[in-house]
Amino acid sequence: MSIRSLADDGATLVASGLTSLQRAHPDLVAISEEPAYVIRAGATPAKVALVSGGGSGHEPLHTGFVGMGMLDAAVPGAVFASPTAFDISTAIRAAHRDRGALLIVKNYTGDVLNFSIAAELAAEDGIATETVLVDDDVATDLQRVDGAGPSQPDSHRPGRRGTAAVIAVEKICGAAAEAGAGLAEVAALGRDVVHSSGTMALAFRACTHPGDDRPAFDLGDDEIEFGVGIHGERGVEVRPRAQAGELIAALTAPVQEGLGLGRGDAVIAIVNGLGAMTGLELSLAHHELDGYLGARGVTIARTLVGNYVTSLDMRGLSITLVRATDRFVELWDAPVRTPALTW
Amino acid sequence: MSIRSLADDGATLVASGLTSLQRAHPDLVAISEEPAYVIRAGATPAKVALVSGGGSGHEPLHTGFVGMGMLDAAVPGAVFASPTAFDISTAIRAAHRDRGALLIVKNYTGDVLNFSIAAELAAEDGIATETVLVDDDVATDLQRVDGAGPSQPDSHRPGRRGTAAVIAVEKICGAAAEAGAGLAEVAALGRDVVHSSGTMALAFRACTHPGDDRPAFDLGDDEIEFGVGIHGERGVEVRPRAQAGELIAALTAPVQEGLGLGRGDAVIAIVNGLGAMTGLELSLAHHELDGYLGARGVTIARTLVGNYVTSLDMRGLSITLVRATDRFVELWDAPVRTPALTW
Repeated sequence: MSIRSLADDGATLVASGLTSLQRAHPDLVAISEEPAYVIRAGATPAKVALVSGGGSGHEPLHTGFVGMGMLDAAVPGAVFASPTAFDISTAIRAAHRDRGALLIVKNYTGDVLNFSIAAELAAEDGIATETVLVDDDVATDLQRVDGAGPSQPDSHRPGRRGTAAVIAVEKICGAAAEAGAGLAEVAALGRDVVHSSGTMALAFRACTHPGDDRPAFDLGDDEIEFGVGIHGERGVEVRPRAQAGELIAALTAPVQEGLGLGRGDAVIAIVNGLGAMTGLELSLAHHELDGYLGARGVTIARTLVGNYVTSLDMRGLSITLVRATDRFVELWDAPVRTPALTW
Repeated sequence: MSIRSLADDGATLVASGLTSLQRAHPDLVAISEEPAYVIRAGATPAKVALVSGGGSGHEPLHTGFVGMGMLDAAVPGAVFASPTAFDISTAIRAAHRDRGALLIVKNYTGDVLNFSIAAELAAEDGIATETVLVDDDVATDLQRVDGAGPSQPDSHRPGRRGTAAVIAVEKICGAAAEAGAGLAEVAALGRDVVHSSGTMALAFRACTHPGDDRPAFDLGDDEIEFGVGIHGERGVEVRPRAQAGELIAALTAPVQEGLGLGRGDAVIAIVNGLGAMTGLELSLAHHELDGYLGARGVTIARTLVGNYVTSLDMRGLSITLVRATDRFVELWDAPVRTPALTW
């Protein structure tokens, strides 16, 4: 079956994504076309610069989170491909305001490599950087139920994937940087958010890459893939269709257990649509999550419900929990003004 | 083919949509469960109350637009079904602050009927109302290309459908009401926005109603339906797959012509995802729209790009143009603070 779309040319999609963002939000962001990056518009105060990026296809991540209280620059690669070290280092130079740069990197081999080289290039320019590696996807820790899991020994595995917890890292570190925190402090805060976070995703239908005729993997009509990644990576288990409460409980349990969340704990929850979920379904997922956690004495202190870290047109959702401290909540609540997140 | 989803029970989806909205945004909205409506949280100043509503399945419309600078109350019906007159009139009473109520109604038979009865019930309570009927979908004016169009004489047809221009009506009237404008003035302004607006939509895949196994209509792999409605209504023409620029030009031309837009004119543009479009595709549509209008001397003064008036999980998009006046742009730019729109 062919999945129709507006364009099958990934490069055109990425380029027009940048020009569209600038045209729609000239008060918030400016763009560089070559190399491609998005930067905060206007005069930025002297502060730690937050720079992130990664493959395109996850919009509004990361380009939609550039602005006051979040990122100073975002560097999009091609669809599902890392930006180059040169592009990243150019964006770091453009965003830098003499207090160093925090690089927020989702844990994928290409991103880790290119941001690492970019950090070296920045150092040659006398720019201090710290890196926060985001690796929140607990599915990566789970063995595939049918035994077809990773065959590499643990020491050779790339570790957990980075997914929607990156929103919490960008929001919380962004607020701290805006308030004047230094590079080491913002970096430590970001690592603290990562260690306090876990994510798990499910899909009813995989994403279809621009130009492809078929989804990244096939699922039967009554099958739901648990533990999917955001690039069409298969999950850890195929489950049959079930009631929403049962599905959300199965999705949330490994995240809750991984963080050791129990009675009296509070979380920031991100109920994230992966591309083709309806608003009503995301609200239902939030409702069921609320019930599941509430029954275990865990309070949702803050919630974000919507499409924030997508996987093209994947029909699915992810749930991210961040163990909430007073400091995290205070920084979460701080003003933010970006194309995709404003309060 | 069966389309998987998180739930096939429309009533559960609508109810959890309300509780989720309140749990996620307690600072912005409060809800009534029975009858079901969303109302602005906290003390509202004495102002004209803006009340809208309609069938669910179009989220974030309308419930996501309750808050400062936009709606005072929104009344959701079942999926694709009008709320009852009783529910609407209850919401009007709850939202009313002694300066009358503006009812913003998309032009569908059920909504028109129920809001009309609700206005009578409000009058019995001594509440003055005015109604703005939103009927922006230019596809309704077009004859189906294969001749299978409406067979009723014009005088018996229900007129144009109301779609995404309702966002502009709610935003612009909301800003005027917030600034203290009276009922007659806000109503006249809303009608002016409607008369200045046009919308046209296309779909690559129809929506699937909760509980149904199949999309509302079938399309071949290389077919695109032009002129679709937001409830699975067929369009006016099936076109073959084509370049994005060609598709967006074909979509925009009847809107531009209907409004008589030409050199020197400016518009507010809404590039609206119907449920399952990727962010990259919506940006590309915006980019192509910008080029199409620019070549005709029409400037886009303001743009909104994203999922605002959806049709469940329809894979498609709509383009709305509002002929921009200085007053419209000034009110568009005024602060707004709702779950789905904040600036």
